[in-house]
Amino acid sequence: MAVYTEISDAELAAFVARYDIGAPRSVKGIAEGVENTNYMLETEGGRFILTLYEKRVDPADLPFFLGLMDHLSSRGVTCPTPIHDREGGALGVLAGRPAAMVSFLDGMWPRAPNAVHCGAVGQALARMHAAGQDFPLRRVNALSLPAWAPLYAGSAARADEVRPGLAATVTAELEALARDWPTDLPVGVIHADLFPDNVFFLGERLSGLIDFYFACTDMLAYDLAICLNAWCFEPDRSFNYTKGRAMIAGYQAERPLGTDEVAALPVLCRGAAMRFLLTRLHDWLNVPPGALVTPKDPGEYLDKLRFHQKVAGAGAYGLES
Amino acid sequence: MAVYTEISDAELAAFVARYDIGAPRSVKGIAEGVENTNYMLETEGGRFILTLYEKRVDPADLPFFLGLMDHLSSRGVTCPTPIHDREGGALGVLAGRPAAMVSFLDGMWPRAPNAVHCGAVGQALARMHAAGQDFPLRRVNALSLPAWAPLYAGSAARADEVRPGLAATVTAELEALARDWPTDLPVGVIHADLFPDNVFFLGERLSGLIDFYFACTDMLAYDLAICLNAWCFEPDRSFNYTKGRAMIAGYQAERPLGTDEVAALPVLCRGAAMRFLLTRLHDWLNVPPGALVTPKDPGEYLDKLRFHQKVAGAGAYGLES
Repeated sequence: MAVYTEISDAELAAFVARYDIGAPRSVKGIAEGVENTNYMLETEGGRFILTLYEKRVDPADLPFFLGLMDHLSSRGVTCPTPIHDREGGALGVLAGRPAAMVSFLDGMWPRAPNAVHCGAVGQALARMHAAGQDFPLRRVNALSLPAWAPLYAGSAARADEVRPGLAATVTAELEALARDWPTDLPVGVIHADLFPDNVFFLGERLSGLIDFYFACTDMLAYDLAICLNAWCFEPDRSFNYTKGRAMIAGYQAERPLGTDEVAALPVLCRGAAMRFLLTRLHDWLNVPPGALVTPKDPGEYLDKLRFHQKVAGAGAYGLES
Repeated sequence: MAVYTEISDAELAAFVARYDIGAPRSVKGIAEGVENTNYMLETEGGRFILTLYEKRVDPADLPFFLGLMDHLSSRGVTCPTPIHDREGGALGVLAGRPAAMVSFLDGMWPRAPNAVHCGAVGQALARMHAAGQDFPLRRVNALSLPAWAPLYAGSAARADEVRPGLAATVTAELEALARDWPTDLPVGVIHADLFPDNVFFLGERLSGLIDFYFACTDMLAYDLAICLNAWCFEPDRSFNYTKGRAMIAGYQAERPLGTDEVAALPVLCRGAAMRFLLTRLHDWLNVPPGALVTPKDPGEYLDKLRFHQKVAGAGAYGLES
């Protein structure tokens, strides 16, 4: 939960006046999201999410993110659509921050996802991958394999404070991943952070994908591996095969996986677990005093990593041959 | 900013099903308010504020608060209206907390109030006082004179950490207030916390009063004294006579002050400054580790108190004789 930047009514009125959406009628800070400041804004013209981009977002990446949402929306992916000002731009400045407005999406994210949700997410992910194929911009995944060793270096000395044995597991796994990481799988736009809080549902019908601020160009099957990590484990950290099978089947209904992607799925799942283990470990060890955000437990992804290390093949995730 | 209690989609659906407002379409935690958890909820039937009452609210007070909002709404005061369930109740239980839904009000609170805003607040306050005259419930003001000495006792030893001389000023002033506090002024329902973030405007038109969770039965002119403190000082802590005059004139246009109320205005303003000084001092000295809320500066109300101590009469606040 976070509103890092307060805005005055005068600043807001001046910002909104650049768009053809009428005057503001209400604005409320939203206690969700940890990267940016988000407001729910209503004007005479409708409802919008107003985002002020804080320091963790590189302003140079914003044309990629906003352009991607425009692109996906135009191809039928239900996601926030950037609102363009009278001069055609989607990016402005508010309270000294880069800022943009996007359309408001109905729906709620599922706090306890079931297999139906998982199937819908798999299908929506594959549709997003297909729709992104002709998106012309590229963005390197700043949190992929090359980033992991340097990221871990900052936490290594204290890693065993979190869980005895964590350091040894990570060190060995980073070596294995560097050796086994695939390099020739199909690539495209991936969401890279499609956790339950970024997928809206109305009942069991998926109503939209949000938060494209980690989106980048990377292996498509890696995005599926992230989702398997994010959606298909139970609170006790056991893998739910039924959910995995639903997710993979949903994905393949729209975009069948190649044999190379199927073969790589376990190592991609290990990499995805490592990525979230390392960022959580970093955040856990670097909580600023008086922090607004409670860090998430890195141990959760250590447990998931250890599950993936024992997996013999994609069948363990529910892929039916 | 605070969302203390997370709710699941299943809990929410079950809660909303008790009301005749259709199914939920979206729910977002609001990063405003420090006492309770607030969600902005949209259902097929409209938009609502959903409040989960946290530990600082005594559940025994909720019938007073919700009944007051019903009462004031029915008498034309624009304020949140409690939504009643199919059995007629306004109070439910959600995620183990007492919870209620109220109507959503358009408008934004003024970050930089001007004299027009202050005049409108004075008028709305007097209308609220008039509309509350026949409200049958009573609630003692838990933060009035009898509470101040015990409240200060918990902070006295460390008061000078905040500002040298604070302890001596508060000790002497508490004695003076105990001696001079009026006892025979007109009494009724007061808001008791009508700060700018609790008053919505659309442009310069007042569109509603919110947050009645400090409302109680007390001297009506004390409520005006709270508003003079909350609205009519500049960021440099100087009193703005023009704003005070507008607020008092707005109030008197609806409810003329009696000569006893006029005479008591300076001591009421001192008491109001003391009340916020003491609660802020307590919060300042008792910030829990990892707190979600940045405490407000108690020194602001020490400066305001010192202004009031030098005031000779209500004319200093802008009352025109």
